[in-house]
Parts: sequence; C-alpha cells; structure tokens
Amino acid sequence: MSALNKVRCGALIMSVYLSFSANTFAADPAEGRILATQCKTCHGIDGIAKIPIAPNLAGESQIYLEKQLKAFRSGKRENEMMSVVTKNLTDQQISDLAAWYESISVTVSIPE
Amino acid sequence: MSALNKVRCGALIMSVYLSFSANTFAADPAEGRILATQCKTCHGIDGIAKIPIAPNLAGESQIYLEKQLKAFRSGKRENEMMSVVTKNLTDQQISDLAAWYESISVTVSIPE
Repeated sequence: MSALNKVRCGALIMSVYLSFSANTFAADPAEGRILATQCKTCHGIDGIAKIPIAPNLAGESQIYLEKQLKAFRSGKRENEMMSVVTKNLTDQQISDLAAWYESISVTVSIPE
Repeated sequence: MSALNKVRCGALIMSVYLSFSANTFAADPAEGRILATQCKTCHGIDGIAKIPIAPNLAGESQIYLEKQLKAFRSGKRENEMMSVVTKNLTDQQISDLAAWYESISVTVSIPE
C-alpha cells in the first residue's frame, strides 16, 4: 500500500470512528430519564420490570436497546405494546432512552 | 348457571391452573445453569452480557425469557446467533434456562 493510500485509509478509519463516537456521545441520559416516564409502568424508571411479560432494562447496553427500539418501530420485532409506543420516537429519543437505561448500574447475585 | 355447570367451570379453571403450575414448577434452574454454558460467551453464566450487542439476562422473568427463546426458535424473532442456538432446544430446556436466569438476583443503582 502506498503512503498516500495509507493516509487515505487512516483518514477513513478515523472518520468512521468519529462518526460512531459522535452518534454515541449525542445521547443524553438525563433527557432519556424524562422520556422514560412513558416506559415506567412496565419497565420501571430504574429498569426493573413491573410485570413479568416485560424485560428489565437496567444496565442493558445502549447499542442493544437502540437496536430493539428501532426494530419495534420498524415492525421487524413485534409486540403489541412496543409497536405502539415506539411508533413516533425519533432516533434522538431512542438514543436518549437507551442511554438512560444503560447508565443504571446492575449488581447480580447468583444462587448457591 | 346450573350447579353442574358451576362445578364444570370450577374444574376447568382448576385444570388450567394446575397445568400452568405444573409447567412452571417443572422448570429446573440447576439444569438451566448447566445448559447456560452454551450462553455464557455472550450472556454470561451470571446473566451479565459480555458483548454490547447481547442483552443481560440476569433476573429477567421466566415468562419473558421463555417467550423470547421460543420466538427465536420459531423464527418469529430473528437474530443470526440466537436462531442457531435455539433451533434444537426442547421446551423443557427452554424452561430450565429461563428458570436459571430468573433465579439470579439483581440490584440496581440509578445515577444521581
């Protein structure tokens, strides 16, 4: 690979990295906490589910949560309730919500 | 409703209840813990995910986990990895796995 191509390759990698970082850091967990009032009846503000058919969300990664919320919004993943509540969420709101639930620390204790 | 129909109705309710209980209590978390060795690379034996694209499973309800595992097995929910690993799981194995992850206690701490 020529020196020029190495530079081009490096610039491309950096640009992809920065673009990914920018998307990640744009998420605002404080805003997500406010938005989570619409999730709390089933998932809790603290991410501990209130009903057995809903999952705990506490400490789930932002990446995982964003993917699931977008899958519900697009219809790729189906659930009567989630299809409705995600319908009008923007990408920003999805990132904020995901950042909120990711920001919750989780400690586990396994049975003896 | 006649007395006979009341009895029939009561018997039906009891039979549904017992059948549900039987299914629930048949799940063996100890067996699930052994089966979970095939889940641990992504989800951890303790249900704390090792990679950001996989969810934590610790403390999720048995009902929720069974539903998701069956959805992956049937193809209703899609994921490249999960579709493969659930393909040959029996209902009993799914219940055992779900019971294992449900049995893990979770404590959360929300940011100030």
